[in-house]
Order: sequence, then structure tokens, then C-alpha cells
Amino acid sequence: MKFTLVATDNAARAGLLETDHGTIETPVFMPVGTQGSVKAIEQRELIEAGAQIILGNTYHLYLRPGTDIVRAAGGLHKFIGWNRPILTDSGGYQVFSLTDLRHVDETGVTFRSHLDGSEHVFTPESVMRIQRDLGADIVMVLDECTPYPCDEAYAHQSNELTLRWARRCKEAFDSADLPYGYTQALFGIVQGSVFPDIRKSSAKALTDLGFDGYALGGLAVGEPAHVMYEMIETCEPLLPSQKPRYLMGVGRPENLLEAIERGMDMFDCVLPTRNGRNANLFTRCGSLNLRNAAYKSDFAPVDPECSCYLCSNFSRAYLRHLFLAKEILAYQLATVHNLTLYLWLMREAREAILQRRYVSWKRSVLEKMTQGVGIES
Amino acid sequence: MKFTLVATDNAARAGLLETDHGTIETPVFMPVGTQGSVKAIEQRELIEAGAQIILGNTYHLYLRPGTDIVRAAGGLHKFIGWNRPILTDSGGYQVFSLTDLRHVDETGVTFRSHLDGSEHVFTPESVMRIQRDLGADIVMVLDECTPYPCDEAYAHQSNELTLRWARRCKEAFDSADLPYGYTQALFGIVQGSVFPDIRKSSAKALTDLGFDGYALGGLAVGEPAHVMYEMIETCEPLLPSQKPRYLMGVGRPENLLEAIERGMDMFDCVLPTRNGRNANLFTRCGSLNLRNAAYKSDFAPVDPECSCYLCSNFSRAYLRHLFLAKEILAYQLATVHNLTLYLWLMREAREAILQRRYVSWKRSVLEKMTQGVGIES
Repeated sequence: MKFTLVATDNAARAGLLETDHGTIETPVFMPVGTQGSVKAIEQRELIEAGAQIILGNTYHLYLRPGTDIVRAAGGLHKFIGWNRPILTDSGGYQVFSLTDLRHVDETGVTFRSHLDGSEHVFTPESVMRIQRDLGADIVMVLDECTPYPCDEAYAHQSNELTLRWARRCKEAFDSADLPYGYTQALFGIVQGSVFPDIRKSSAKALTDLGFDGYALGGLAVGEPAHVMYEMIETCEPLLPSQKPRYLMGVGRPENLLEAIERGMDMFDCVLPTRNGRNANLFTRCGSLNLRNAAYKSDFAPVDPECSCYLCSNFSRAYLRHLFLAKEILAYQLATVHNLTLYLWLMREAREAILQRRYVSWKRSVLEKMTQGVGIES
Repeated sequence: MKFTLVATDNAARAGLLETDHGTIETPVFMPVGTQGSVKAIEQRELIEAGAQIILGNTYHLYLRPGTDIVRAAGGLHKFIGWNRPILTDSGGYQVFSLTDLRHVDETGVTFRSHLDGSEHVFTPESVMRIQRDLGADIVMVLDECTPYPCDEAYAHQSNELTLRWARRCKEAFDSADLPYGYTQALFGIVQGSVFPDIRKSSAKALTDLGFDGYALGGLAVGEPAHVMYEMIETCEPLLPSQKPRYLMGVGRPENLLEAIERGMDMFDCVLPTRNGRNANLFTRCGSLNLRNAAYKSDFAPVDPECSCYLCSNFSRAYLRHLFLAKEILAYQLATVHNLTLYLWLMREAREAILQRRYVSWKRSVLEKMTQGVGIES
């Protein structure tokens, strides 16, 4: 994997991330395909929306269909019919948030499956093996994602464990054979909750270990947005400029734009897909709740400036009807639109960085989004 | 509306049904878009699958979003973004099967909505007005669909009411203004349960009234398939050969092929879409239940001879995984495939009629489907 900085505009960066499944233009938003599908959207529609890379969740895929099935299929790309890049997370976040967690110790984590209660163990080594077998282009280290709030002593101790696991991950990753012939990259994850000193020490230690990219984890877990931005500002100067930076689990359009301004390159979040399925549509003029009676006879497109399949062919009134009637098509169309909007936003951000007008562009975009011009048509 | 018989092969017919929204090649299968959406498939995917005409259900659309909204949108075609032909049923079937029915009398039917319990009345006149306002290319008369089994006296009496309603429908339809400028056609519905004499008298009476097309209703409601075929054979010679014949609510692939052999031109059924959402996939070699563990590591396409998006890009193992994981994409892909298969089957049937080899073609298709060749790969 090769990362090239194409342009910078203050801390904001436009880059090219080359993988064996294609080159990604950054900043990039990565739709989340938890169980091998980005919910309610077809792979060809992801391409149409402009998705360059998608996520898979190691925890979910390991439990179902199981690593053996994915490996027998020839890897996750072949199994799910997606030949662009894939990033898999380590499964750590899901273990800590979804499961009946049995035990964390130096070795790893023992947990019970949320599907059938069966007991499993994730260790740094096993998680590297699983992700190698899934065949992601970008593999994440096993970490402990601290909750918010979290006391400083716990954040410190947890981060120390995460760093020891990161070292073991790197060793296991480097010594594992490549199951599919193409290159895979390994990203480290900076933890440290909202404590600048722990964040700094985490960033430094990971940089010393040397990864192909660096993620900021443990953010967007409930802390105020300004605290998240401060943590980004704390870590950013310590991360190598020639490597991609990935802000995990973020976020709303404004969060992405603020994080890009602070030097972040990669993002993932379930917000556009999950909110879409809940009738919450993001537009250039703010978000609309399509269940609102205001849209009953509103035959305008959801976002008149959007060129997606929904906005080119259907009205707010029709989409509202589909949501009220619980038609699956509602989830399909809302997902197509929200992802199209997110991916458009990232392309525009990149263009603004290339033209070195990022901050003024961001200001005008956010002003329009928060003023809600045109929401009532 | 104009119907032209292009070719016949014994009783089987290939025709062209011209409407102001385009010409339909018959035999034709009409996907069911109950609430203004064929479930789990996008309109552009219906086009891709080869859908020439879709159904809307008057009962559902009248209750939600309401005829006023559809009329304000400029009709159902515009409201749902579908500019090919649409057929709407009369709402009668749903009133008798879905609602808390209050009262049937000469005037019409009084019922309570399955959505909110509110009371409504459908009369022949109101149902014509509603369907005019929905703007369907093909409008169906209000009828009483007899259940199965049904005693002969009731079937007779019910059919007499249906015939009196048919006359009122025709009068109301003919005297109504055209809300959207394009032509709408009205079909009569032959009832009479499984009693040949009542069926014959119904067919004769409707033909005397004169409709743009004739439907057989009250079949596929639980009677054996051979009884349904006998009823088709009973009615067919009495229906004008220069008008289209529509067998309502049918059916499985073999039912369609047998009905085509017996002179039927048009079909609708929720089977391909509903079964698809239940992991039941129709193929040229029989149907597959994708939840079956046999497909866990089966990386073959659902139907290797099918060119749909599912079969061209994804495996049985992946689709099975999506169903087990309850991913919406499972419903999307299964629907795309099942409709593609049904619509392919109709195109092939037409071709066989044009080449006057319908019966031998039908035999070979059904032999392959029932032998289940290739189901286990």
C-alpha cells in the first residue's frame, strides 16, 4: 500500500491511497458493510454512489458466515462480489459493545457470541489471522475502545494494554502468509480517551512501532464534538504526514468536515445508512425527517441539487408514503441518497483542498446545511 | 387501448396490447406493486428485469397515501415514477380478504380499514372514480371474489351481484372524465367459483356488456390446479378472441404455462416477490430454499443460466448468508432474480408461440423445472 499526499491546505490533506484493489482518493468516507453488505444497497449502487472502499466487521463475519466460508470463497472481495478495496476492523469494538464479555486479560478477550451465546477468544494473533483470511486490503489492530466517560487511570492502563496488543498484532501480521497473493496493510489505533497526555503517548508509541496508517479510536463515543476535535488536534502533529489517518466511527457531515480541516483522511460511520433507514435524509440544506406530515404533498425531490436515483426520479411525498407503508424500497432509496450525499461531500472537500480554499468552502457548505434553506418547499 | 393477436398456437396466443404508456407483448406477467412499490425492487430494476406493466392495488392506495395525494401528484405513474403501463384492481378482493367487512348489499361494500379501523364504502361508481383518479391504463370492475369452497347457490347469487355491479361500473367508467388526458381501459371479471354453468353465464353476460378485456377471477383461491385449468377451458371459448384475457392472481411457473396453453394472456401474482423474500428462489431447474445448509459453501450462482444481477455477480452461499443475517440485500437480490426469471419465462413462451412449438417447449421447460437438474451443484 502506498500513500501519496497530493495537496495540503493548512492541515487539510488530499491524498492517494494505492491498494492492490485500486487507488482511493482521500479524504474518503467508507460505507459500513458490517455483515458483508452495506445495508439496503446493492454493490453496483455503491459504485454508482462513488464508494471507493467499504468496511467489513471482523466480529460479525467471524461469527457468521465464519472465516472458513469466506476463505473457501477466495476471500471477502469474492464472497461479497466487491472488487474495490475493503477495510476490516479488529472486532474489538464489537466485543466490548455487543457481547456478553467474559474476560479481558493480557492474552486477549473471551466473549460470548450475541448470536448463540457460544464462547470465543480474540487475541491479537487470532484477529490478525482472521483478517488475513478475510483478505481485507486494510487490517486493524486489536484494541480496547474505552467508553466515555472513563477515568484517567483506566484510560492509561487500557491504552498500555492496547499498545502491547498492537506490538503483538504487528508481529503476527508480518509473519503471517498472504492467503490471496495481494498486499494487505496494517493500521495502528491511537487510544487514550479524552486525555491529551495519554493520546500523545499512544500516538508516539504506535509511530515508533511503525504502521501503514494510523487510526484515532475511542472517539465519537459520547464526548462533546469540541472534545473530539481537541483530541484530533492533539494527535495530528505526532502522526507521520506520509501515512493516512483514519478517524474511526465518525460521523455527521459537519464532524467529517471539521476533522478533514484537522488533517484526517479516512472516515467510516453507520450514520448515513442507519439514519436513512429511519427516514432521516441528509441534504445540502440540512436533514429532513421524511415521516413529517409536511412532506405529505411535497412533490419536490429530497435534495433538488442531488443527482442520485432517488432525487432524480422520486418525490418527498412518494418517499414519505413508502416509509409510512413500511416498503423496503424506502430503505433502499434513502440509503442510496444518504451515501451519495456523503460521498459527494468528500469529493467536494478534496476538490476544495486541491484548490486551497478548504476553510471557505467548508464554511459555505455548513452554513447552507445549518440554515436549512429549502427544507420547506 | 388496442389488442392485436400476432400469432396463435392452438389456443395459446401471442399478442400486442397497445396503451398510451406503451405496447405490451403478451403473454405477460405483471409484477404486483400493492402500495405503489413492487416490494424490495427499484423501478429501474423492474425495467431491467423486463417488466412491461405493473399492478397497483386500489384498496391500499385509496387508504394510503389516499387518492387525493395521487391525484395531486398527477396520477399514479408520476407519483411512483413509473411511465410504463399500470393496471389497478378494483379493491374488491382486498375488501373481502383483508378487512373487517361490515356489510355487502346491492349498493356496494362497507368495510373497516385494516390500518386504522375507519369505515369506508366501495361502490361500483366510487371504485371507477378512484381508479380514474389513480390513472391506471387498465381499470378493473368491482366484483365479489367467492372463496373456495363455496356452495353453488351462493356462487350463483354472488355472480349475479357481480354482473349487476359490472354494468354499473361500465356506465360509471364511460361517463367519467379522463383526469390525465390518456386513455384508460376497463376489464370485466368472470366469476362463478368452480361451477361451469355459472362461469359460462358470467362470461356470456360480460361479453354482452362489452369490455376492453376479460379477467378470470375467483381462481387460485385454494381449488386444485386441475379444477382451475378446467374453469379456464370452460370460459375461454366464450371470450372474444380479439380481446385480452387476464387470469388473476396466478401463479407458479407451471400454472402460467398451463394457462397460456389454454388461451390466457395476462397474469399477476405476488409469488415471485413474496417467495423471494422468504428465500425461495425459482430457477430453470426448480426452486431452491436458500436457507438450506446445503448452500453454505455453494459458490455457484442461484441459476447458472440466468443473466440477472444476482446470478451474474453473487453465489448461493452469499445469498444464504444474507438471508441468515437478515440483510435487506437478500430480499433485494432474491426479488430481482425471481422477477427476472418469471419475465424471461413469459418472453420464451411468446417466442415459442410465434414459432408454433408451444406445447413441446412447455414440456421441456417443465421437465427441467420439475426434475431439479442442477439444484445440487
